[in-house]
Amino acid sequence: MSLFVTKFGGSSVASVEKIGNVSTRIAEMKKQGNDVVVVVSAMGDTTDDLLEVAKSIGKDSNSREMDMLLSTGEQQSAALLTLGLMARGCPAISLTGWQAGIKTDGQHSKARIVGIDPARILNEIDAGKVVVIAGFQGLSPSGDVTTLGRGGSDTTAVALAASLKADRCMIFTDVDGVFTADPRIVKNARKLATISYEEMLEMASLGAVVLQPRAAEFAMLYNTDVEVRSSFNNNPGTIITEVAKMERQRIVSGVAHDLNVARIALFDVPDQPGIASIIFKILADKGINVDMVIQSAMRDNRNDIAFTIERNEFSRVRPVVNEIVMKIGASGMSFDTDVAKISIVGAGMQSNTGVAADMFNALAHKDINIHMISTSEIKISCIINENEIENAVKALHDKFGLDQVD
Amino acid sequence: MSLFVTKFGGSSVASVEKIGNVSTRIAEMKKQGNDVVVVVSAMGDTTDDLLEVAKSIGKDSNSREMDMLLSTGEQQSAALLTLGLMARGCPAISLTGWQAGIKTDGQHSKARIVGIDPARILNEIDAGKVVVIAGFQGLSPSGDVTTLGRGGSDTTAVALAASLKADRCMIFTDVDGVFTADPRIVKNARKLATISYEEMLEMASLGAVVLQPRAAEFAMLYNTDVEVRSSFNNNPGTIITEVAKMERQRIVSGVAHDLNVARIALFDVPDQPGIASIIFKILADKGINVDMVIQSAMRDNRNDIAFTIERNEFSRVRPVVNEIVMKIGASGMSFDTDVAKISIVGAGMQSNTGVAADMFNALAHKDINIHMISTSEIKISCIINENEIENAVKALHDKFGLDQVD
Repeated sequence: MSLFVTKFGGSSVASVEKIGNVSTRIAEMKKQGNDVVVVVSAMGDTTDDLLEVAKSIGKDSNSREMDMLLSTGEQQSAALLTLGLMARGCPAISLTGWQAGIKTDGQHSKARIVGIDPARILNEIDAGKVVVIAGFQGLSPSGDVTTLGRGGSDTTAVALAASLKADRCMIFTDVDGVFTADPRIVKNARKLATISYEEMLEMASLGAVVLQPRAAEFAMLYNTDVEVRSSFNNNPGTIITEVAKMERQRIVSGVAHDLNVARIALFDVPDQPGIASIIFKILADKGINVDMVIQSAMRDNRNDIAFTIERNEFSRVRPVVNEIVMKIGASGMSFDTDVAKISIVGAGMQSNTGVAADMFNALAHKDINIHMISTSEIKISCIINENEIENAVKALHDKFGLDQVD
Repeated sequence: MSLFVTKFGGSSVASVEKIGNVSTRIAEMKKQGNDVVVVVSAMGDTTDDLLEVAKSIGKDSNSREMDMLLSTGEQQSAALLTLGLMARGCPAISLTGWQAGIKTDGQHSKARIVGIDPARILNEIDAGKVVVIAGFQGLSPSGDVTTLGRGGSDTTAVALAASLKADRCMIFTDVDGVFTADPRIVKNARKLATISYEEMLEMASLGAVVLQPRAAEFAMLYNTDVEVRSSFNNNPGTIITEVAKMERQRIVSGVAHDLNVARIALFDVPDQPGIASIIFKILADKGINVDMVIQSAMRDNRNDIAFTIERNEFSRVRPVVNEIVMKIGASGMSFDTDVAKISIVGAGMQSNTGVAADMFNALAHKDINIHMISTSEIKISCIINENEIENAVKALHDKFGLDQVD
């Protein structure tokens, strides 16, 4: 008998009909002789609806009270899914985060799981029940309801799988798994059978969010295998695991791209100690996320500094940058909202030289100009013109032979 | 400094605007130097909406899971009201039933409060906060969320007032208090300044539900004064208290009437031991509430038995009664759905003779025919024709001088 921890997101339980489908699927899993724990998100738009009501009551929302409010969404879907299981003759029970023994720190709205006391869950499993747990929530040391922030239900599932020593953690979502590139662009993109935690994290940071980064970190920390698979079919998904467990060491696992990018350049920034920290402190204080940063070679004691931000934040960022230009005495700024980021990700890069050269070469071969470059141990990213992104993705997918089965 | 426990029902918090009004009222109370605990019901139709969703998922609802589901309504309104208080600069915190230390037995959907551990509430009060508590819910010995059933939030408020030794328990509702008769019928009906627990219970059993009966029982048990008052104005309401505390012993406090009545008569019921218990066991097994019962004088070893039920249950009751007639060998049945019940209620009846005679006399004086009579220590009820109910209420209100101030 195996123990599965499964997770279904908000879109998988968005309606009575969909809750019925998930119930049928889980009941079948149980019928086949498995023990099943289900982590569930709030139904469809529930969380957004509650946020809107709260906003109309008071502008400054208190994070403890928001957690109290929002955590009801998952409690509702857990109870409803349990009723759906019961209606199919499958014994089941729902548990809130605090009933499931999920202990967090006290950072409301972005709490971190600090421990799990699985006694109650194990009792209910022993009693033959499917245990349906409200995701995204836990209990703080002071006895308050906390929420885990974005992707919290993924994290709940992975943490439970680790704590319960589950045979498998399955995240059911609206995609079939992790692909070597976006299948809408690259016709022969392949679904990966496995991907390492680190690669998944880099993919996520590029906007290809199949498993929430915090959940991936948790999986890495506790060395828990996580399968991401579709809630709409029975195809096997992609297993996120440690590098050592992967069948074959690939150099490059996938090509990711991100169109939500804008580039900003500051000209003639005085070369004084601390000037960069002033610039990026101002941006951070305004909650602006800076991704890539490049400081050009100095001339005449002045530098050019370029960085990228999320394009959908551009209108908010622009006046802040104007302020920065005044403050630091730069000569001016330029911006470019027609750029995109293309990246190759692969755990094998760490031990293979020449991968960057291969990437630049493949892009050059297609006459694609590179504006910025940044590298990490397992990722190389380039900023190029947006209208060249499809060509670039196809070129790199070919170059690194990603259409070939592992 | 006084400690007030207040309760606002679902209609008082049915919209963002109404939550704002309640917030303003509570913030004012706090500003005047009082400690305030607020018990709140779910917003307007929330509970009904959740019930409907649950019904569409599975016909046979599990009461533990329904409690899990329904308790979210009060948790939401508690959080929202707290946000409303904070938006008005009033320090506040919301607590669920389990956080507030409300312990119940394990009867899901109709749990009874067995104890309250007020430590957390007292801490929050000491910290200067208004404490907003989700009504209608508690925690069972097995750590499960329970709901208290109909009128549960009233009971929560009264139990908290008793446990916290509050200076006053105020139930805010959509009426101004308890009246000597229905003001829509009797122009000079007066709002009572005080009424005894027992009188309130008798009034409630007559359909004049201002305070839920279980809450009134709780108040009587713990000798807690409860004020029922309007959430729409600042008029003082009616204080429900022990008889000894009332300013003046009234013989009759009020005239109540109930149109939701039907009368059923069984003819020629054999006079055998246990025959009545057979009849009423069958009705009870079908969940049919029987109110008044009369067994006429025996002749030829056969009796007539008449009883009243709720009129809106009549179509369901009729076939059951036919079955009973067959089973016990009665000669037939008759029914009457054009009747109504009129009652006088008063703690002073216990020590005053002749009240019943006064009542019958007043009705006779108006040519009103009495079909059935029942009496308790503090109540006398008559079944009369429905079309005479207004005349009857007015006549009795006059007869007992209820328009005159205590």
